[in-house]
Amino acid sequence: MPRYRLTIEYDGTPFVGWQQQTNGETVQGSLRVAIKSATGEDVVLQGAGRTDTGVHAKGQIAHFDLSREWVPTRIREALNYYLRPNGSIAVLTCDAVADDFDARYSATARHYTYRILNSRPHPVLEKNRVWHVIRPLDADDMNEACRVLIGHHDFTTFRAKHCQANSSMRTLDSLRVFRASNEVLIEASARSFLHNQVRSMVGSLKLVGEGKWSCQDLADALAACDRTACGSVAPAAGLYLMHVDY
Amino acid sequence: MPRYRLTIEYDGTPFVGWQQQTNGETVQGSLRVAIKSATGEDVVLQGAGRTDTGVHAKGQIAHFDLSREWVPTRIREALNYYLRPNGSIAVLTCDAVADDFDARYSATARHYTYRILNSRPHPVLEKNRVWHVIRPLDADDMNEACRVLIGHHDFTTFRAKHCQANSSMRTLDSLRVFRASNEVLIEASARSFLHNQVRSMVGSLKLVGEGKWSCQDLADALAACDRTACGSVAPAAGLYLMHVDY
Repeated sequence: MPRYRLTIEYDGTPFVGWQQQTNGETVQGSLRVAIKSATGEDVVLQGAGRTDTGVHAKGQIAHFDLSREWVPTRIREALNYYLRPNGSIAVLTCDAVADDFDARYSATARHYTYRILNSRPHPVLEKNRVWHVIRPLDADDMNEACRVLIGHHDFTTFRAKHCQANSSMRTLDSLRVFRASNEVLIEASARSFLHNQVRSMVGSLKLVGEGKWSCQDLADALAACDRTACGSVAPAAGLYLMHVDY
Repeated sequence: MPRYRLTIEYDGTPFVGWQQQTNGETVQGSLRVAIKSATGEDVVLQGAGRTDTGVHAKGQIAHFDLSREWVPTRIREALNYYLRPNGSIAVLTCDAVADDFDARYSATARHYTYRILNSRPHPVLEKNRVWHVIRPLDADDMNEACRVLIGHHDFTTFRAKHCQANSSMRTLDSLRVFRASNEVLIEASARSFLHNQVRSMVGSLKLVGEGKWSCQDLADALAACDRTACGSVAPAAGLYLMHVDY
């Protein structure tokens, strides 16, 4: 069966996450409805990253099979025709791929960006798009502290209680923090992440930025392999799945 | 009476514009309610630019007088306390100013930015923040055409029917168009603009970008001094009052 790969943008605000479930609207569910409307087919839709409630994507990747061949751009146009009225999801690209391509298991790197609005006034034009942190953050200190987390570690401290991964070992390929005007941006890349890992790391890096934690405090938290050693998990609204490498 | 100057950010989407009126929620009205809540005073609030329904601001300026002196940062904090729950307006700065400062009449330049999302897929994370134009635009052609409009002209063609200005003569100090990834940005600066002038110019520049109009067509439209010679007025959602000079 011909296989298609989608690049998807979504506003996570109205969704209870990517993964289809019974208790609310999901990105995966909405896309499957659009695919059904466009092609008449009930498909299995596999995504690269299972983003949580409120988490956004500028470059989520998913694949699905159809029983007959379509011109990929026609799939994109047809899906966007059905997605446009709601307006919270758009298909950016659609490509035909080999039938051994798997959006989840073929991925070699996932890239996330986390946005903090670091200002006294609350966000307005960026409402539901950033974490609002009032206390001034030292982005250089935060960036320095990234050294502690980069590399191959047991990330139990930065892992949601209900994370289903078999192992808590992960390799964080890159992590950097920088300031752009009144925003502090955190970019994280790895082959895969544990559940809530990025938001957990951001919550602890924020403590470093506020001067409450030193690099050593962060290193101790990592070494503790204990969920309770982690700072507060950063809110979903600031997190974006930016792109996925294959 | 002590006079205060505010820098204001707002999402224009839920408002029928800046100017207080009887038929809907306005930015000016919402701010006056917040000022009343914070200080107990009914003030006259004068803004630098009367933005229309749906137009945004990152740097609207307004002034008002209070009967007693306040620490300016306390005013900002108090206003944001009352504005935060609704979340569509924030006061970025508050400063004490001389009593001859007038947000509207002392302004020497107003700077607007217009954002076009130039892509086939519809906007998602930037919904209500951009004009969605599917047909590919040549930003260089649009920028070249700006030459026609820059300077001192009769802008009757690019003026709303119900514009209340005494004269249709305006001096457009600068106008430029450039591409940033899948966005085409238009920046316009002048001491003052006619009603709908920026959106009218953008609507005609878009015709140039699509190859439907030449620079000469734009020059002819300007010279016609006729509202019907103008392209469609660009939608409000893409327009931002960025800052005001004094």
